[in-house]
Amino acid sequence: MRKGMHWGIVLLVTVLAAGTALAVPATTEDAIEYRQAVMTVMGAHFTDMGAMVKGGTPYAKEDFEKNANIVATLIPLPWDAFMMAGSDKGSGMKSEALTQKEKFMELARAAETEVGKLTAAAKSGDMGAIKPQFGAAGGSCKTCHDAYRSK
Amino acid sequence: MRKGMHWGIVLLVTVLAAGTALAVPATTEDAIEYRQAVMTVMGAHFTDMGAMVKGGTPYAKEDFEKNANIVATLIPLPWDAFMMAGSDKGSGMKSEALTQKEKFMELARAAETEVGKLTAAAKSGDMGAIKPQFGAAGGSCKTCHDAYRSK
Repeated sequence: MRKGMHWGIVLLVTVLAAGTALAVPATTEDAIEYRQAVMTVMGAHFTDMGAMVKGGTPYAKEDFEKNANIVATLIPLPWDAFMMAGSDKGSGMKSEALTQKEKFMELARAAETEVGKLTAAAKSGDMGAIKPQFGAAGGSCKTCHDAYRSK
Repeated sequence: MRKGMHWGIVLLVTVLAAGTALAVPATTEDAIEYRQAVMTVMGAHFTDMGAMVKGGTPYAKEDFEKNANIVATLIPLPWDAFMMAGSDKGSGMKSEALTQKEKFMELARAAETEVGKLTAAAKSGDMGAIKPQFGAAGGSCKTCHDAYRSK
């Protein structure tokens, strides 16, 4: 009885931790459009931060922090759409992403972690912390793009 | 001297309140791509909420709240890109949006307000509050689309 309860709790915790997916696309076309849109918005705000890190635009703490928080809000969103069966067709995603789901998700979660650290650095307002962490976050994007983006 | 300081402070407060724009697009093509991407992501999460409000998918407080918060994060972002000179060309935006900037921004801010109220309703978890506020938020989107979207 006790053992049964134990496994029941493990199952419940697992289900809760996995959560449910948001904005589940109905078709592969929807999945591609959605994930590309998320990437476009993230890219624009990442570029904004990059300009401040590289000195192309003056560093403004509040704006940098807003940009980092927008990227942090968006970065968990597109992975389910990437993992949709058949959604490699007609997109810039290599088919390997779908045959190496575990590896893909590992790289995706690593990017989430680095972006999380970037929001912390952004909050500190210390460019000495921001600059390397911006590099680490960008690097985590690149690792996944190099592995699973065909163009 | 005192009067001079007074106006200096008024100016400073005005400049701070206006803030600076994030993710300023370099070209009208960039502006269109960015604002369409923001709209696509908002649309997907709005649709998610709509399904819960209409009962197509079971209501899940946490997911509904996440969706509302994502939309609230995104909704202030696209307006500057819409207001970029020449960005009506090759897009679904009527030229009137650029000749009626004040009116456009009024409708945009109204949508932000309604979405803000939707996040509050979502937090309450009370479908009696969520349902009418979801309608009001959707209505505020539609008002602007009806006025300034050509397709």
